Amino acid sequence: MKDVHAMAPSVPRLALGKVGIAGVRKPLVIQRPDRTHTLAASIEVYVDLPESRKGSDLSRNAQILAESIDTTVIQPSPSVEATCVRIARELLARHDYAHEAEVRAEAEYFRPRGISPDRMSLEDYRLFGQAWASRSNGQLKVRKAIGVEGVGMTACPCAMETCRSTLSREFPELATSRFDDLPMITHNQRNRSRLTLLVGEEVEVEADRMLDVVEEAQSSPTFAILKRGDEGQVVLNAHRRPRFVEDVVRALLTLTAERFPELPGTTEVVAETRSEESIHKYDVRAEHRAVLQELRSNAVGRVD
Amino acid sequence: MKDVHAMAPSVPRLALGKVGIAGVRKPLVIQRPDRTHTLAASIEVYVDLPESRKGSDLSRNAQILAESIDTTVIQPSPSVEATCVRIARELLARHDYAHEAEVRAEAEYFRPRGISPDRMSLEDYRLFGQAWASRSNGQLKVRKAIGVEGVGMTACPCAMETCRSTLSREFPELATSRFDDLPMITHNQRNRSRLTLLVGEEVEVEADRMLDVVEEAQSSPTFAILKRGDEGQVVLNAHRRPRFVEDVVRALLTLTAERFPELPGTTEVVAETRSEESIHKYDVRAEHRAVLQELRSNAVGRVD
Amino acid sequence: MKDVHAMAPSVPRLALGKVGIAGVRKPLVIQRPDRTHTLAASIEVYVDLPESRKGSDLSRNAQILAESIDTTVIQPSPSVEATCVRIARELLARHDYAHEAEVRAEAEYFRPRGISPDRMSLEDYRLFGQAWASRSNGQLKVRKAIGVEGVGMTACPCAMETCRSTLSREFPELATSRFDDLPMITHNQRNRSRLTLLVGEEVEVEADRMLDVVEEAQSSPTFAILKRGDEGQVVLNAHRRPRFVEDVVRALLTLTAERFPELPGTTEVVAETRSEESIHKYDVRAEHRAVLQELRSNAVGRVD
Amino acid sequence: MKDVHAMAPSVPRLALGKVGIAGVRKPLVIQRPDRTHTLAASIEVYVDLPESRKGSDLSRNAQILAESIDTTVIQPSPSVEATCVRIARELLARHDYAHEAEVRAEAEYFRPRGISPDRMSLEDYRLFGQAWASRSNGQLKVRKAIGVEGVGMTACPCAMETCRSTLSREFPELATSRFDDLPMITHNQRNRSRLTLLVGEEVEVEADRMLDVVEEAQSSPTFAILKRGDEGQVVLNAHRRPRFVEDVVRALLTLTAERFPELPGTTEVVAETRSEESIHKYDVRAEHRAVLQELRSNAVGRVD
Repeated sequence: MKDVHAMAPSVPRLALGKVGIAGVRKPLVIQRPDRTHTLAASIEVYVDLPESRKGSDLSRNAQILAESIDTTVIQPSPSVEATCVRIARELLARHDYAHEAEVRAEAEYFRPRGISPDRMSLEDYRLFGQAWASRSNGQLKVRKAIGVEGVGMTACPCAMETCRSTLSREFPELATSRFDDLPMITHNQRNRSRLTLLVGEEVEVEADRMLDVVEEAQSSPTFAILKRGDEGQVVLNAHRRPRFVEDVVRALLTLTAERFPELPGTTEVVAETRSEESIHKYDVRAEHRAVLQELRSNAVGRVD
Repeated sequence: MKDVHAMAPSVPRLALGKVGIAGVRKPLVIQRPDRTHTLAASIEVYVDLPESRKGSDLSRNAQILAESIDTTVIQPSPSVEATCVRIARELLARHDYAHEAEVRAEAEYFRPRGISPDRMSLEDYRLFGQAWASRSNGQLKVRKAIGVEGVGMTACPCAMETCRSTLSREFPELATSRFDDLPMITHNQRNRSRLTLLVGEEVEVEADRMLDVVEEAQSSPTFAILKRGDEGQVVLNAHRRPRFVEDVVRALLTLTAERFPELPGTTEVVAETRSEESIHKYDVRAEHRAVLQELRSNAVGRVD
Repeated sequence: MKDVHAMAPSVPRLALGKVGIAGVRKPLVIQRPDRTHTLAASIEVYVDLPESRKGSDLSRNAQILAESIDTTVIQPSPSVEATCVRIARELLARHDYAHEAEVRAEAEYFRPRGISPDRMSLEDYRLFGQAWASRSNGQLKVRKAIGVEGVGMTACPCAMETCRSTLSREFPELATSRFDDLPMITHNQRNRSRLTLLVGEEVEVEADRMLDVVEEAQSSPTFAILKRGDEGQVVLNAHRRPRFVEDVVRALLTLTAERFPELPGTTEVVAETRSEESIHKYDVRAEHRAVLQELRSNAVGRVD
Repeated sequence: MKDVHAMAPSVPRLALGKVGIAGVRKPLVIQRPDRTHTLAASIEVYVDLPESRKGSDLSRNAQILAESIDTTVIQPSPSVEATCVRIARELLARHDYAHEAEVRAEAEYFRPRGISPDRMSLEDYRLFGQAWASRSNGQLKVRKAIGVEGVGMTACPCAMETCRSTLSREFPELATSRFDDLPMITHNQRNRSRLTLLVGEEVEVEADRMLDVVEEAQSSPTFAILKRGDEGQVVLNAHRRPRFVEDVVRALLTLTAERFPELPGTTEVVAETRSEESIHKYDVRAEHRAVLQELRSNAVGRVD
């Protein structure tokens, strides 16, 4: 039988950057400090293709995914990104004609959260992993990314001051100095923020600690179970910490610099945030990418 | 050549309720009072299939859509739902073995909106149309649905009172009677509301008037362009009209009863609303379906 | 503190059909014959609201979900639909003003599949559950739905005969009687089929058996790992069993009648299928809803 | 009233890479050779933010979009990407503190297609535009991207040879030399391919010509209206030109090099393709990015 993939392509010879499979869904079991978590993950994997070959051996990719992920049901993986690294290495081992491999995985992740111990509930977050492996001269280089996403709440500091100003004119008898301290109405909304760290293969970061940074960067975290008094408390908390998307990104970066002193200075940090504005039909977004050592030198003299 | 569709199916004979095509994308031009609108519509069409036939002649469906929709570029249709009716009639005419036809179309729709005349902007809404045609004893019966959806804002009346109560204790010197009138902080969020009217083929309803009802039922409409003072105004408006999703649904139904006295009492009204809660990661929804004459008798003694 | 939800609404009194929460994401652990499965489920829950109340106590819903679903991590639930039933009962117990409760849940589900024992891989399906509970005169009535969805492949029987006819003219020397048996080219594509059973609360149906029906109704199931020869085998299998969407729906219904003799004749069966046509940019769909006893009498004399 | 955006941020000073609005929906009218097209576009716009400012003036963005896009209803724009360039320039003009602006727009696009002149139908494609403007030392630099996406069909060359081999054993009397020319069964599926060109602001490329390249790179284009004989024709065409995703990417690149001799050699070309495999539940993807002059030198000696 002809091995059509291994044949030379008839069109002009062109090496291709990425060939692989995407939209693969798998249960992925990861071991966290507290317990094992079964995630429903979405995965894509790619290798490059030399100009001498017509096609990539894609059935190997599916087999590697079965071997690396299906088995986590019995032998859990340490993390989403560790799974990506393992797959990337295996891709290069099994596609001997390839020089580069790329793996991306993402999954929903649940952790127990509550405004008080008797209001605990499993709430949804997202985890992202990526790995890039490349080989040249027999040397293998592997990098990976660890990403987390959490939904919380932002309250706008600008509309708050506009409303305070308007209402202090409308209610002059209330407009004392204390009135300036009164949490004031503004628009507030769902905010979805993501923090990603790009590091060497050997560096380990606990995703839960990154999610803590995300929730602290927003005006307030949100919760599934809120009794009447709790609702008021979350609203008050958010209005006492009004934040633009710009503030959220700055907080993501600054908190990362503070909380992860053990990470190498070369770590790349990507902070992204999106507020699904209540007063607009569109979203407001901010994003910044920086190297950790630069953020650390910046963090000197932090006042907020 | 064998006509495989017209052959008898080999499995036990079963008439089928719906066979057709879905996910068809088309530009649909409709004539509104002000101007023509070109919509990017998503369409699905179905007819039933008698037990004597193996398959439905689906290429006729695609041809009917080309004839009925592509031609609106030259000859605009009066509305999304009128297009659905036309297609449903044509489906029965061209599938002579069928007794029932169903058509659904939906599209984004833009209309100029602004908090003031110098802040106008085209903002996005959704239009929905449906038509059902059935024939028995040579008689054709056609019904249709007209649906609209708009995004606005809701502010929660409950958390507002909780916060007022908490803050009146924390700021006792402000807690005068006037303090009770002060718009108070609460959670506010995007609200997506939909209003649908099911009527006979001959009844016409202007979708823009239905969208006005949707935007009036929410705590406040939202706008693309809001200068600083405008933002405060929208926030104030919403906080002066705090609404649960339950309130939004009641308002949708009541306003429909008030604003459309010309509609037959047999008109079915479906009101649906979804608030993308800022203090939760999930949404809050309410929905009710009623007949117009029942809503009209209810509306007596309306106080809000 | 005012209980704003329990206040009378100020607009005309209107009882509402459905008020609740949607888009709730939860890990749901279910016990299957083989092992426990952790699903990432999406849930929505509703109760009705009498005209005397302004709002529904939504925090109770979130609490019921935490109690009914979060706890499955420790004490697995028998199934998605059993979880829905439990929640529906609890909703009525905790919203004493409500007469009806509705719960919907859906989740991805993985099961091991392979074209041969050494090609096994976890593949993705979907499970759906619904429950409706209603009470009147102290009597509680509960119904539930069990739904499954699987992706497979269909090959078109019509284009196959057209191509055979064309090629028998082009290759007259091949066009012997045996040529008519040769599997012939046609368009083939992803098919997504869903089977739903509506039954009383006490009836139990194993979802895996329903998924077997889905995969048997398509031209061929599909697999993640296919070595070269396997690919050919799947292609051959599908072309030896070409099927319209109409055939798939008839097979879903007929196989259900055959395979589930233990189910009550009043069971409602909903069969839906969608082929993502390779020769069109749109999908082809068919759907039928029937009562089981009617399907059983139909199944007499089945020939396929 | 305090200008909160212009205040210094209280956290450590950090310039931010991107702040803006996303998910803005607008009707965008573009002038094509044949006629004007009204697209329903999705837009996002960003500028950078210096460390001295707390927030970006986002209401200006909404205003620029209203001025640049809403007005195309009266005065059509030449193209999606020209609209992006105009907006990017305006962003820098109106955010005097910014040095970089980025704009992305995408929209569905319909063009008349048919397997024959009496089978014409409007079919759906996608257009993408991007623009990046940056200023330093009073100099403005603008680059843009023009992207198109089209859905067609691929037939797998590998499974075809496997099936030929199997069937030549099963039908030895048919297995003559002519049997090797007989179009053979294989899996075929929807393919979604995208071609993007990155060029200087002044370079113009007709999107329709790029879409022609996309449809030629696939095994066959697909059509909405196919009568019985046409279906067979499309199936035959695709099976006479079986293509891996790797072949599609190579064809996209090679055809671009051939068809656009007028483009500067520095043009970057991005070719991406995704086949929604009929024999798998996942997709197969390939992608390559190259510079045009490199593709041109490669194209010498093309044989396919």
